[in-house]
This record gives sequence, structure tokens and C-alpha cells, in this order.
Amino acid sequence: MKHKIITFGELMLRLSPDNNERFTQAHSYEAVYGGGEANTAVSLANFNVNVSYVTKLPEHTIGQSAVNSLRQYGVGVEHIVRGGEQIGIYFLEKKTSQRPTNVIYNRKGSAFALANVDDFDWDSIFADATWFHFSGITPAISDNMAQITLLACKKAKERGITISCDLNYRSKLWSGEKANKVMSEICKYVDICIANEDDAVGIFGLDASNSDKEKNSYIAEELIKMFPNFKMVASVWRTETSITTFKLQSMIYTEGKAYYSQEFFMNILDYIGAGDAYCAGIIYSFINDFDPQKAVEFSNAASCLKHTVSGDYNLVSVDEVMKLAFAKAGNEVSR
Amino acid sequence: MKHKIITFGELMLRLSPDNNERFTQAHSYEAVYGGGEANTAVSLANFNVNVSYVTKLPEHTIGQSAVNSLRQYGVGVEHIVRGGEQIGIYFLEKKTSQRPTNVIYNRKGSAFALANVDDFDWDSIFADATWFHFSGITPAISDNMAQITLLACKKAKERGITISCDLNYRSKLWSGEKANKVMSEICKYVDICIANEDDAVGIFGLDASNSDKEKNSYIAEELIKMFPNFKMVASVWRTETSITTFKLQSMIYTEGKAYYSQEFFMNILDYIGAGDAYCAGIIYSFINDFDPQKAVEFSNAASCLKHTVSGDYNLVSVDEVMKLAFAKAGNEVSR
Amino acid sequence: MKHKIITFGELMLRLSPDNNERFTQAHSYEAVYGGGEANTAVSLANFNVNVSYVTKLPEHTIGQSAVNSLRQYGVGVEHIVRGGEQIGIYFLEKKTSQRPTNVIYNRKGSAFALANVDDFDWDSIFADATWFHFSGITPAISDNMAQITLLACKKAKERGITISCDLNYRSKLWSGEKANKVMSEICKYVDICIANEDDAVGIFGLDASNSDKEKNSYIAEELIKMFPNFKMVASVWRTETSITTFKLQSMIYTEGKAYYSQEFFMNILDYIGAGDAYCAGIIYSFINDFDPQKAVEFSNAASCLKHTVSGDYNLVSVDEVMKLAFAKAGNEVSR
Amino acid sequence: MKHKIITFGELMLRLSPDNNERFTQAHSYEAVYGGGEANTAVSLANFNVNVSYVTKLPEHTIGQSAVNSLRQYGVGVEHIVRGGEQIGIYFLEKKTSQRPTNVIYNRKGSAFALANVDDFDWDSIFADATWFHFSGITPAISDNMAQITLLACKKAKERGITISCDLNYRSKLWSGEKANKVMSEICKYVDICIANEDDAVGIFGLDASNSDKEKNSYIAEELIKMFPNFKMVASVWRTETSITTFKLQSMIYTEGKAYYSQEFFMNILDYIGAGDAYCAGIIYSFINDFDPQKAVEFSNAASCLKHTVSGDYNLVSVDEVMKLAFAKAGNEVSR
Amino acid sequence: MKHKIITFGELMLRLSPDNNERFTQAHSYEAVYGGGEANTAVSLANFNVNVSYVTKLPEHTIGQSAVNSLRQYGVGVEHIVRGGEQIGIYFLEKKTSQRPTNVIYNRKGSAFALANVDDFDWDSIFADATWFHFSGITPAISDNMAQITLLACKKAKERGITISCDLNYRSKLWSGEKANKVMSEICKYVDICIANEDDAVGIFGLDASNSDKEKNSYIAEELIKMFPNFKMVASVWRTETSITTFKLQSMIYTEGKAYYSQEFFMNILDYIGAGDAYCAGIIYSFINDFDPQKAVEFSNAASCLKHTVSGDYNLVSVDEVMKLAFAKAGNEVSR
Amino acid sequence: MKHKIITFGELMLRLSPDNNERFTQAHSYEAVYGGGEANTAVSLANFNVNVSYVTKLPEHTIGQSAVNSLRQYGVGVEHIVRGGEQIGIYFLEKKTSQRPTNVIYNRKGSAFALANVDDFDWDSIFADATWFHFSGITPAISDNMAQITLLACKKAKERGITISCDLNYRSKLWSGEKANKVMSEICKYVDICIANEDDAVGIFGLDASNSDKEKNSYIAEELIKMFPNFKMVASVWRTETSITTFKLQSMIYTEGKAYYSQEFFMNILDYIGAGDAYCAGIIYSFINDFDPQKAVEFSNAASCLKHTVSGDYNLVSVDEVMKLAFAKAGNEVSR
Repeated sequence: MKHKIITFGELMLRLSPDNNERFTQAHSYEAVYGGGEANTAVSLANFNVNVSYVTKLPEHTIGQSAVNSLRQYGVGVEHIVRGGEQIGIYFLEKKTSQRPTNVIYNRKGSAFALANVDDFDWDSIFADATWFHFSGITPAISDNMAQITLLACKKAKERGITISCDLNYRSKLWSGEKANKVMSEICKYVDICIANEDDAVGIFGLDASNSDKEKNSYIAEELIKMFPNFKMVASVWRTETSITTFKLQSMIYTEGKAYYSQEFFMNILDYIGAGDAYCAGIIYSFINDFDPQKAVEFSNAASCLKHTVSGDYNLVSVDEVMKLAFAKAGNEVSR
Repeated sequence: MKHKIITFGELMLRLSPDNNERFTQAHSYEAVYGGGEANTAVSLANFNVNVSYVTKLPEHTIGQSAVNSLRQYGVGVEHIVRGGEQIGIYFLEKKTSQRPTNVIYNRKGSAFALANVDDFDWDSIFADATWFHFSGITPAISDNMAQITLLACKKAKERGITISCDLNYRSKLWSGEKANKVMSEICKYVDICIANEDDAVGIFGLDASNSDKEKNSYIAEELIKMFPNFKMVASVWRTETSITTFKLQSMIYTEGKAYYSQEFFMNILDYIGAGDAYCAGIIYSFINDFDPQKAVEFSNAASCLKHTVSGDYNLVSVDEVMKLAFAKAGNEVSR
Repeated sequence: MKHKIITFGELMLRLSPDNNERFTQAHSYEAVYGGGEANTAVSLANFNVNVSYVTKLPEHTIGQSAVNSLRQYGVGVEHIVRGGEQIGIYFLEKKTSQRPTNVIYNRKGSAFALANVDDFDWDSIFADATWFHFSGITPAISDNMAQITLLACKKAKERGITISCDLNYRSKLWSGEKANKVMSEICKYVDICIANEDDAVGIFGLDASNSDKEKNSYIAEELIKMFPNFKMVASVWRTETSITTFKLQSMIYTEGKAYYSQEFFMNILDYIGAGDAYCAGIIYSFINDFDPQKAVEFSNAASCLKHTVSGDYNLVSVDEVMKLAFAKAGNEVSR
Repeated sequence: MKHKIITFGELMLRLSPDNNERFTQAHSYEAVYGGGEANTAVSLANFNVNVSYVTKLPEHTIGQSAVNSLRQYGVGVEHIVRGGEQIGIYFLEKKTSQRPTNVIYNRKGSAFALANVDDFDWDSIFADATWFHFSGITPAISDNMAQITLLACKKAKERGITISCDLNYRSKLWSGEKANKVMSEICKYVDICIANEDDAVGIFGLDASNSDKEKNSYIAEELIKMFPNFKMVASVWRTETSITTFKLQSMIYTEGKAYYSQEFFMNILDYIGAGDAYCAGIIYSFINDFDPQKAVEFSNAASCLKHTVSGDYNLVSVDEVMKLAFAKAGNEVSR
Repeated sequence: MKHKIITFGELMLRLSPDNNERFTQAHSYEAVYGGGEANTAVSLANFNVNVSYVTKLPEHTIGQSAVNSLRQYGVGVEHIVRGGEQIGIYFLEKKTSQRPTNVIYNRKGSAFALANVDDFDWDSIFADATWFHFSGITPAISDNMAQITLLACKKAKERGITISCDLNYRSKLWSGEKANKVMSEICKYVDICIANEDDAVGIFGLDASNSDKEKNSYIAEELIKMFPNFKMVASVWRTETSITTFKLQSMIYTEGKAYYSQEFFMNILDYIGAGDAYCAGIIYSFINDFDPQKAVEFSNAASCLKHTVSGDYNLVSVDEVMKLAFAKAGNEVSR
Repeated sequence: MKHKIITFGELMLRLSPDNNERFTQAHSYEAVYGGGEANTAVSLANFNVNVSYVTKLPEHTIGQSAVNSLRQYGVGVEHIVRGGEQIGIYFLEKKTSQRPTNVIYNRKGSAFALANVDDFDWDSIFADATWFHFSGITPAISDNMAQITLLACKKAKERGITISCDLNYRSKLWSGEKANKVMSEICKYVDICIANEDDAVGIFGLDASNSDKEKNSYIAEELIKMFPNFKMVASVWRTETSITTFKLQSMIYTEGKAYYSQEFFMNILDYIGAGDAYCAGIIYSFINDFDPQKAVEFSNAASCLKHTVSGDYNLVSVDEVMKLAFAKAGNEVSR
């Protein structure tokens, strides 16, 4: 079967000072575009998957540049609505040893945040789609967006489209209470749920520390109890192992069983978008009928490689992911 | 008499692509801070004038960077209100031969645009002030700002503070009708009016082309008829003389007489802030009791030099302005 | 009628030192992609025309970056053949006052130069096409390319596709004698010919200086005598009017009459691609049924704006071209 | 009590090649300003402490840029003497794995090095001061400076101003013998002494390796024996634990007892100014009446964060230091 | 004895994206020049050794820039042949954590690859030479080059010149079979052989894993069995010890005995040229009559320092190498 | 006859802010090396003339970088004395429209300024020399340098070496009175004098405005009256013709006759080193026996091209100069 993926969310201008400078030192900002679901879309396009992005962006040429940033990597942009006045912006100060990542949002009043229900024609969007992906950030942006996301899920479900959702709880955007209310409704339509510990605690109050099971499998089981429609729960987690090293591992829980990936010890070039790259790995694995162990290795390796690519987008090929996931070779210079 | 100048308005982050690139090519943005009245304040500080800026900026470190950009040049920041969430941003695509300057605003929802009347304590702000300066941009930003500006004028007038206003009509921010209504009230408090042809037409419908007088003096006369409280009307105008050259000239009209500066033929490095630099020249001239001819030459030269400085701020000294305005020497390398 | 344009040629990596440096000073190269017909394609895509590019590029990620550079602006890349080992490169030292532009080619052995006849499936490429565009550079690259271009013309003609050709004589790539032989054959299939004086002299030995007619109209008439199939001959020429200024003007000759555009006096940011932008203007004008005078003004303005955009590609919209071509407004800051 | 801190020393232009290049590769230098005591001043200003810097800088605009670099962060510059011809410069090649930091000074003949006793009016400088801070670098610069520093100490002592001194022995500037002679006199006026092992050996010949006490507490005890006027001796030390990791720890010795901070394992962005940031932590702790344990944790965390900030200046807030020193949270992305 | 070293090979333009970007993100390329034997030559010149480079480069100014890059560091360029059309280029994507180094060659058709036997006048080149160095890359480039290299060896041997060869097997340039055939002939003339495990396996099928001896000494012994003319076999090897750390160690095998250097744990700035720097260390050691243990420490330290220098060339002095190899001091800031 | 040129003077580090920024805006400085006589040397080396530079530079690696900057272009560095502590630095703020060039020197205390008579062994330096060139800047630097320059002239004269001197009066370095005294002595040894109006007035009080002859020929005649040993006086002058255009013209006066070059109208990229490039043109013309008219055209064109090259050094070939001086072709793109 030929798949066509639809992902839905905001697309923002990301501005970060050069060379690990602080905002108070910045005289120049590196400019890229990004946003959770857009990142997943680009990653899929780089895997040669047919994928389109749905969002709303102003008609001006910075809005156009955001569109171009997707188009450049082969993401379909035919369903992007143009209008509104402002593009969402986020300023990023990069983590440097003990100094944490610092994000300043300038996204209130963006075209997407102010979009209306009738901006998106889901019948047209889903006409040839087989998969719908979004994250918990989108309904968190505004009440309108919560309503639109739910509507999209219903429309997708009617058409038998597979729905994946990365819970992605953002405490800066909404309270746990509100998230719980909105996501409880939306999750009823979801087939594949990507969730980590913070999401599970933040949205559903699932505290894994009370269980003696491995945390991620505990959470997966509990989520599936709450939403029996979840065919799979997938997680990726990153642990700081030293001031220069993080450990990355993933799990897929499906049909009552947890599958764990190998661990990667990483030195991180860019902290953003690793979860989104993981989602792309999960979707790619699913539409290519990977078995769960292969799927979790592939998705984990995809997420690992994202940490080596600057910007929000994961610019790696299936070959590169496969090589990292399954080849045993070293990674010295090849020439 | 020791002067203390207060200027009032928004302070924005200005982002422009490197090397005359278009927005659709930009992978990096040069970041400076600017805004009409802030530009005037920095220019005055570089003239060693005691000047403070009044605005509202978020508490986050990009707001702080905006504050620092003023403090670095010696502008007083003790009356800057901190709060709100977003900083106003403007994106600037620089004019390149036939391709015009392109500005995209992202300032709706800025801390300043959403500021309230009680954010500014004018009694405290004006405690030791002798001069109050603002432009027509500030009341154009929001109804609140129109109200706040009028209040500030009243408070200043009560204290016998000299008030200068650069009319600065911006058709993107309000209609001529609304501008007329608001500015007609505010102008009653103004002592020194800086105005050019576009402002006069846009706000007060003063069409100089119907008169056989020199345009700027005609406008000045008409404005003074409308606002007999104007002690002086000052103008600066820039004319494109070839694709690489602009001509700059200025006029001061006071006590029934127009004084014209010499003309400068310029190759322009930065098109922004030349009018603001001119205002600083007028204020400096006034507080130093320059005669009108000296004042118009000084102010015109200050504005001319701004065209050679990148960014919004005019980073030139009184000496440099004096040398350009009055010295006859060439400008070859001195070493 | 809904048009679909096919353009055909090489796509190269262009490397130029920063800030007008010489090659002997360069420690960094600005990297963009370009090539005559690709430039025309991007320009058309920016005019919202449905256009696809046909070329051959290596499978490696620099080849992919070249593909992405087209895709980003909306050029169709579905007919780009992938294979071969090297991408063509050209190094560009920018003209600076008396120092002329300096180009060093590194394109021998490129995937495109070594491409074979059976690399391109013209039946598939032309399936839904209405227009075919190429320049004289393409057949000049190699004997294979001459043969392929001729084949493409024949295939296009069979399908009733309009064919445009920019003669674009490059003395570094072939002799006048050889160009004459190859182009004489190819031109029999061409409907719209873009040619300037250098091309006419170089390829067809048409020396306008012996005629007392206006040079471009003389050349157009002579070309049409040689190739009665030419429905239109179009030219654009740039004249150095001072060390900082060039004059740009254009002509369209059709149905026995020459139409001349207004002149633009330009300060040039980038010297490359202005002819390719002109071709895009001609094609756009034709498929939108502009009358000849409107067409020549539009195309001339498109070419003028290209001089203000760095890189090979013309990143301007129809609106911007229209405004320059037909609006009388100044080009000061709009805000 | 409202504190006003005076710090005194040179302020230099620091020039370092981009991207860890060697001097022999450099075609561009990153330019910031710095100097031991100035770094402490900026750090205090970023803690919202009222602090002024005393130095001498040329009147030219590079001298002015140095002044602006302080003013931007809120350091008082009203006591900076302007005059002389040259600014001190230091060139910095950054440590890269086994390749050590390399500093080339160009500071002989600087305005500060050649300053005279009567350049500084200590009565005016100390008029509203409560604290005086300097380092052992200042008296090392020249005989004049040794004399001026001693004079300043005497003047400060007369006014009951607290005096802190970072011993900061620099073997490139003076011999241990000379340092001993000068510092022995100066130290009689000091209340708070910041010293590490190298300083203690270099200036006072205190060799901790002969003692079986912990080195830093041994040195502190010995220094207090020599200078019973020392109310506190504070130290910070950095140990290379691997090629990518350094360990940072601090001690405060006061009233016969040593207090040790936690250890931080750091990956270092900038090696310069960590001791100066520590001094700022000590002064901040003292004027805010922190108990010794809190003081040593705060100062150690301040110094740790400096390692994550490029340039000489420590651009961190009290909140950030507190969070690192006392919060147990991780430092993942917060959004 | 006064030595004069001749090294022979290609010199390429190396282009790498800034800041660890991928090729698909690159808008600018850092440009340096490099090539195995040229790197060795520059390293020797930085050790103040009299060394000349033999290669062929186009006459254009990019060819000249390559020449200048050698001349700048004092390498003799009097034997560089100028001619041909293209310079060899290699694009370098830097290793970043799990993402390996990626090299794309654009060197087919380079002036050097297409050079002829009579381009090089070995009698003139070797007139005052005492040492000849090349690597296995040079004969791998083309059949011509294999022939030329063999000829050079014969000419050198006739004159009693010492010959060193870094086997440097490159599987992308030739098969093991072909390498074996060519190198077996060439190696008969070699006095000093630099070889590592990959070379030994790739060219001579020497699989150390079948032996219970230490791998490098096993290989050395076997090579000497094959080529009794080898007076010395030297190796350097780099092992990944964590995602941020590599270990470097070296061995010299001579007169039946293996000498091992200390190990360095490195964080790597640039992965290219470390073997070439090692060769320079070996040659320097030899011409300065270092004993084997001193030689292996010196060469290993030279190679270690290369990892801290960006670009192909090792820009370190004998003093710096000596300090790392033999001094026990730490590498904190010295000032 | 095979010529060997010796040039003598300081070599400084030149630091200029990027993109026409002012010093108060600079966060990065472009670094090149330059100095009057060094510039002439590099220009000659680029003309393939055998030339060596004599100066004194510190042993540190910034001193070495200065040496490398000459060596890279083929200037002999075998007579450069190494020692002293500091390198001379000059900061350059580039002229921008009405804002003049601004130079801040940091050269007092440089190794060269403090050099002693016995640092330079003129017998060795002049061993194989045929020409000695210096400028009036060198004796202006210090009394030592005046003495050394005079000594060098005497030594050169003894050997029959041709001596050329660019008077190059710098009012910032010495008074006219002192210059007169020193240069009057030195000029007795000079064969070829390069002088312009400012030099003639500043050093010798020659005021051409009192004469009705063409200024430059008047000055030449007067100089030859004063120094009959002058075989030739050569001048180049630059006149501002508009804010974007300068005119360049030259004259050679020899054997009683003045020869004038054509005029060039230039847009200037770099204002520094044009006179030094002119000197190189004069020397090149002389050693190649150009007739006076050819010489003045060649030298004028060399100087013109320098204005198109950033940095102090003139990086152009004889071919390029010839083409500009004598070819009539346009300077459009050649490809």
C-alpha cells in the first residue's frame, strides 16, 4: 500500500545566537524553521515518504520562507493555509554545560494560534491520506486549536486513517488539568501514542515511581488501560550521564509486550527535535511493516542522529539510520 | 541651564538578513535594537546630552538586551517599565537598487503595545526633566498609547517642560482620519514640531502642491496657523538623485522665517533612523542656543551621517557632525 | 490553458568568495546553485508558473542539495536524473569597479556533461508539457548534449510544444563554427528566440554594425530571415554608463515590428542570471497573453530586479516586477 | 545597608580567532573587552549590585567602546579617567584538547600602564563607596600602579571601606620577590583575601605540599597568620579530570573554619574570568550576609557558570546562580 | 648534515560546511588546501625543516592559492608544475557524535590526476634532496601516477636519497589487488615505511588478528619480512574510547624491536591529517637522530596536536610538540 | 639584468570592523597585515619580481603570521629580524559616504619602532640587491629609524643600488620641520622619488598653488631643483568626483618632461595601499625598461586596481594591469 502522511501543527521561525552565546551577547541570529509536527514531516520526507504538512502561515515572504523550508526537503505544502499577520517565533539559547537551554516564545498572535476552524478543509486534506500525525502541542496552543485538532481526528477516523499522536506535554502552554480534559477526548481517536514519563505525569497523572515495573512499560500499560484504542505506545528517553554525554534509549509497547532498543551514548549538537525524529521513525517503521524490535531500533537510531544535526529538522537518510541501528562498523573517516 | 531629556516610545528588535539578501535567502539575521524615539535618545547620548528613555519591555533577557543597547551608549534606563511577554520585532530587507526596502512587523501583542496608562508614572519620570520628545508613531500604536501620550503631554506642560514631536505619519498603523483626530489634540501641547510633506498630507491634509511657496516653508506656515503654540517647525527631506545617490536637505521655520541647510549628496549604508537623528540635532541645537542657520546645518549634518551608520542608532559625536556641517576639509584618509 | 514548462540544462554549484575578495584571499566560499535554464525555472516558479527542471545530478548529498535548491522555490524535480559522480562547479570572483568578473569552471567530468542520450526519457518528460526552454549553453557542453538537445527539440515539436531558446553563446565552451553548425540545426525547431548582439555575432556572424538599423532589431530581422519559424526574437542589453551604474533595456521583435522597453539605471548586486530572468519574463508574458509592449516591459523589469538579488536565481514575485515595470511610485521605505 | 562597590584595574581589548583557530590561521578576530577587576564589576552589575569601575582609557572610540562594554551591563563608569594613547590588548588562542591556551599581550604602553598617581582622585571615587576590590594584577603592571594601589588601599581604609583583593599572581608581569615586597605591604589593608595555591606559592612561598592539612585550608591559615587583618580567605580551584572535563570546587575559610562547596564537573566554553566571577560571588555573598556555607556554594556556582559564557564577563543572574547552587532540578530544555 | 626533503602528491581544495552542518544545510564552505604529502610538507616546514613540494596545479588563481597555502608556511614551491584545467576538490562533512565523517571527492580530471610522466623532471627536483616522501594515495590516483611514483623512487634510489612511504590504503581509489601489485614494486625502494592495520590488510592482506603478538609489531615484522629494505616501520593508531574521546598511540619498529609511545586521550577538533603529521614527526626524528623511543614520543605528540588544529595542515612548532611529548606540566592558561 | 628589490619598513596588523561598522559597533575585526613598503613588496612579488622585505617582528606567532602573509605571496623574508615584544597594530574604520576613514594606531612600542641600528646587517641584506625602496614613514617612526634609514641609503649608494623613496608625509608621526630636516638628508641618496602635493607641502613647503604650472609637474621640477640626483619624480592623485566616484591619474616627470596617464573613474573597495601599489608599478616599469608613457599608464592602472582589492596588499598580476592600462575591452563577465 502506498502511504500518504498528513502532519498538522505550527511552523515557527527559530532564532538562536551563534556559537553558544547568550541572548545578551547576540548580534546575529541563526535562522531556521521548525515545529514539532513539521520536524516529523521533514524527517519522513528525508526517508522518501509521501508527506504533507498542514498549518497556517502569513502571506508575507517570511511566511513563504517557512513554506520553502519544508518544500526544499520534499514535504508537500499544498494544504498550507496562507493568511494572518505574524509568524510564530522562538528564540533559542543553547545549553552549554551547566547552563540550561533557554527558550523565549514570541508566538502569541501568530497566524496559526489565531486560525479558525474553517481555515482547514479536512475533507480535501485527507482525500488521499492514509496517516494523520500531530502532537499535544497543537491543541495546547488555543481553544480553537483544541477544537480543530479534535475535528481533524474525527474526520480522519471516519476515513479509516491511522492516527498517531505524540503527547508532548508543555506546561508553559496549558495546565495539566486542561490538558487532561482535552487530550482525554482526543486520545480516543489515536492508534499510535508516543509518550514519555513527563507527558504521562503531566497530562494523565501517571506516576511510574509508584510501580515496581520498568517505568516506560508501566506507563504504556496504564495508557492502554485508559485508551484501549492505542495499538502501540512508544517512548524515547534521554539521560544525562556526564556533563558531555547523554544516553538515549527507546521502547515500543505493543500487544502486551515491551521491546527495548540498544542504548546510544551521545555528545549533543542540537537538543531540539529528537522526539519528533523518533515519531518519524515510528511512522516509517509502521508503514514498512517492521517488527517491533526492528522498529524500536530504527526509531531510536533516527532520534540519535537528530542530535547530530543542527536545526529542528532531522536531515538523515534511511541508509544512515539503518547503518547506525544495525551495522556494527565504526564511524571513522571513510575515503 | 542643565537639560534632561525624556523620550518616549517603543523599542524593537530589528532583524535584517546579511549582505542585502532577501528574506527568502536568509539563514542568519543581524540583530540590533531600534525605534524612532529610542534612536533620538541614543543620538543625544552620543552628543553627551543627559537623556532617558521611557518604554515598556518584557523582563526576559531579550528585553534586557534591548535595555542594554540603550545603556551602552549612555541613555538613562531608570524609567523603563519591565513586564509583558513579547518584544516588538521588525524584519528589515534592505533597499538594493530598484528593489525597495521591505519591512515586516511582528509588533502586535508587544509589551509596549499592550501597556496600560498606569504603567508610567509621569510625575516621577518628569521630576528632573526639561524636555519631552516623542513621535507620531507612539500614539498610533494603540488607543491606550494615544491616551498615554496625551496624558504625558499634559503632565509635561504642567511642569513647563519643552515638548517636541516628530509627526512621523505611518499609514500602516492608523488612518489619516484617526491620526488627525488624535494628533490634533496632542499637537496643542507641542512646542517644536518636526514634520515633512508626507506627515503634513497624511495627518493634516496639507497639500503643498497647491501653493507656489517652497513646499516645506508652506507646510510650516500652515502648521503654525493650525497650532500657534509651535515655536518652530523643522523638516528634513531626502531625494533620490540617481540609483546610487540621494540628496539630503533640511529647513527650520521659526519666527516667520525659513532657514535652509546646504545639500549633501549621499550614498546610503542604512536608510533607517535618519529622521530620528535629525530630531536629535534639533534638540541639541535648541538646548545649546544655536541660531536657526547653525541649527539647521547641524541637524542636517547629523541626519546625513546617520545614513553612514548601520543599525537604527546614530553613533556619531558632536565633533563629527560639526566637522561635516562647517568644516570645508575633504574626507580622505587622515593618518 | 494551463501551462507546464520544461527547462533543460546543467545545474552547478556556484562558489564565490565573501565580500568581493579575490580567490587568492578567500578562506570561505558562499555556496549557491545555478545554471542558465535552472535560473529561468526558479524565476518562473516564483511567478507561480508550473515548471519542471530536467538535468542530471550525482546521487550524493551535494547533488541532493542542488535538487533541494530548486524544490525550495517550487520547481518540479520529478524529471531530474540521478547518477554520475561529480557535480559541475563554477567559482565566481565578483566584478569590483575596474576589476572584471572572473569565472573558473570545474565542470568537465560532471554528471551532466557525461550524460547519455538514454538518460532522458523525453516522452515521459513532455507528457503534460506545453513549453520547452533551453539555452545555447546546453548543446555546447558536449557532443552528447548537442545530440540530446536536438532530440528533445524534435520530440517537443512532435507534440506541438512551444520551444524557446536563449542562444547564449559561450566562446569558452565551443567555437563559433561549431556553434553555428549545431545551433543552425536546433534553431529550426525554435519558436521564441532570445538573442543579443554577442550571440548573433558569435554563432551566426550577424554583424549589426554594418547596418544603419537599430542593432537589436536588425539582428532580429536577420535571424527571422534565417529561421522563419521564429515567431519572436527578444533581446536584453546592459550598458556600463559609469563605474557604478549600468543601463538596462530590452526589445521584442515580432510580426515585423520592434517594441522597446523603458531604460533602467542600475547599481548591480549580482551580475549573473539577468538574461535567464529575462527569459522567464518572456515566457511568463507569452503564456499570459501580454501584448508585446507589456511583455517587453515586464521582462525588462524582471531582468532589472535580478541584478538586485544575490545568487543565480531571481527571487522576485510577479507583483514586484509589475510594480517596477508599471507603477510610477518611488522606492523609499514603506512602513 | 546600601552597598556601593569600587573595583580598580585595567580594561583591555581581547581579540581571539574564531572557531578555535590558531593565530597563524586567523583572518578574523572576535573582539570583546575584559580585565580581572572589570570582569568582577560586570558580574556584580549583573547581580544588580551598585558597582563602579576605575581605570584609565584613551579618548578615542576604541577606548569609548571599552567604556560602553561596561555601561551596557550597568557598571558605573563615572570614575573612568580618559587619556593616554593606547588601549591594552590581549590576543587569546583558545585551549583545544592537548593544545593549551595561548595569550599574547600587547599592553605595554597602554594608557593604564602609563597612568600617574594624580590621575585618580580617590576622595571623589570613594565618596559614597562601601567596598573596594582589586587584584594582584594591578600593582604588577608598573611601579606607578603598585604605588597607586597602595594609596587607594590607604584611602579606603581611612574611610572604613571593606577591601577585597584577589592575589592573582602573574609570573609574566613580575617576579615572586617583587610581588612579595609589594603585596606584603598592600595586604595589610585587605579584609577579604581571594587566593589559590599558585598565588600562595608565587607571592608568599607558601608550599602546601609540606603540610598534611587540606591544601587550601592550610594556605588560608598561613595567610591569616601573616595578615591577621584577613577576615576571610576564599579559594576556587579547577582540576582537569579528563580531556573534556574539569572539576570545580571552592573553599571559604573564616573564623578558624573551612567551608567547602559541592563539586561541579564542567565542559568549558571559555577559560577566562572564572576567578573574577568567583570574587563577585564572594562580594555578593558578603553584602547579602550569606552564611559561609551558602556563600561558598553561591560563589562556586557563579564561577562554574562563567565557564559556560564566552568572553571575559560573567553574564548570569542571581537566579541562575541560585538555581545551580541550590536547586536539584536537571537542566534539560524547559518549554 | 643539512637535509632537504621532497614530498610528492596531490594538493586539493578542501571545502567543509561551517559549524558541523550537513551538506544539505550548507550555504557557505570553509576553504583550505590539503593533501596527504602536502600536509607532511607543511608540518616539516613548521618544524623549520627545508622541504619542497612536488605536484601539478592549474595556472589559474585557485591553483595559485593552493601554491600560496604552502608558501605561506615556508614550503618550497619551486618544483610545482603549473598546467591543466581543474584543481582537485574534496568536500568534507565533519564527524559529529554518531554521524560519521563524510567525504565527497571531485578530483577526477584534476591537473594532477591527468599529469604525464614528463611533467616532472626528477633530476632537477632531486638535485639537492636528501629525502623523498610520498604516500600510497599518489600511485592510487591513476596509472600514470603509479608509473611516475615508481620512476621517482628509482631516481631517488640512484642518488642515495632516503625514501619514506606512508602506505595509506584508500579503498575508494583502487582495489586491494591493484594496490598490492603496484605497491609491491614501489616498496622495494622504500627505507622508512609508515603503515597501520588497515593498510596492511588492504594492500598486503596481513591480518594481525591471526597472530597473538601485539598487532602493530606483528605487522611491522611481517612487512619487514616482505621488504627487508625497510629500515623502520612506524604506526600510529586512534581508538574511540567514548563518544567524545579518542585514544592515540604510536609504535616504531626498528632493528627487531618495537618502541611504544605514551597514550593521549583526545577530544578531536579535526580528524584529517593526523597520519600525515605523524609522518612529519618520523622524518623530523630521523634527520635529527632521535633514538627510537624519543622518535615515537615526538611523532605521536605531533600527531596528537594535529587533532587540535582545524584544516589539513599541522600548524605546530617543535617546541609545542616537545612540551607535549616530554614535559609533565598541565595545560592550563599561562599568563 | 636580473633585479633583486629590497624594501624596508614596518609591517603591522590591520584590524577593521566588518561591513563598514564603526569601532563602537564592532564585535569582530577582519585581520590582515600591511604597511607601506610591505605593500609595495607584495605587489612586486605578484608581478613575479624578486623582492625581499626588511623589518623587525616579534618571535611570537602573531609576528610569524605577519611573516607568513608576505611569504604567501612570494616575498623573500630571509632578512626579517625577529625579536622585540609587540607588533604594531592599526585599527581601520572604513570611509562610508560622508563619514571619513578613521585610523587608530597602536604602534608605539612595536618591535620595529624600538629596533636598533645593529638589528639590520645592510651588507648582508644588500649582498645581491639591485634596488632599495622605502617611504618617508619609516624614518618618521623614531629617531633610530631615521638614522637606520639614512645608513641604509648610504650603504645602498656605496653598492650602486638604485634607491626609490615614496615621500609619504605623515603629520601624525612627525612635524614638517623635523621631516624636512631628516628627509633633506636622506633624499640626497634617492634616484626615484614618488611624491604628491601633500608630501611636497608637508615636508618641503612646496606650494604648487602659487605657480601657474600644472601642480604635479611644478612640484616635480622644484624637487629636482632641490635634489638634482632625482632621475625621476612620479605622482599619483585621487580626486573625489562624487560621493561614489573618485578619479585617479598619475604623472611621471623625467628628463625635463611630464608624462600623464589616462584617468580612471573608480568606485573604491579599499582606500589603503594605492600609493604603495603605484610605487610597485614605477619600480616594475623601470626594471623592465618601459618608456615613460608606458610606465605612467602601467603604474596608474596598478594603483587603480588596488582600489578594488580589500586589505593593504595589491593582489593583481601584470596581465591584469596591462589589460586595464592598454586594452580597450569592456569588463563584463567573461565565460
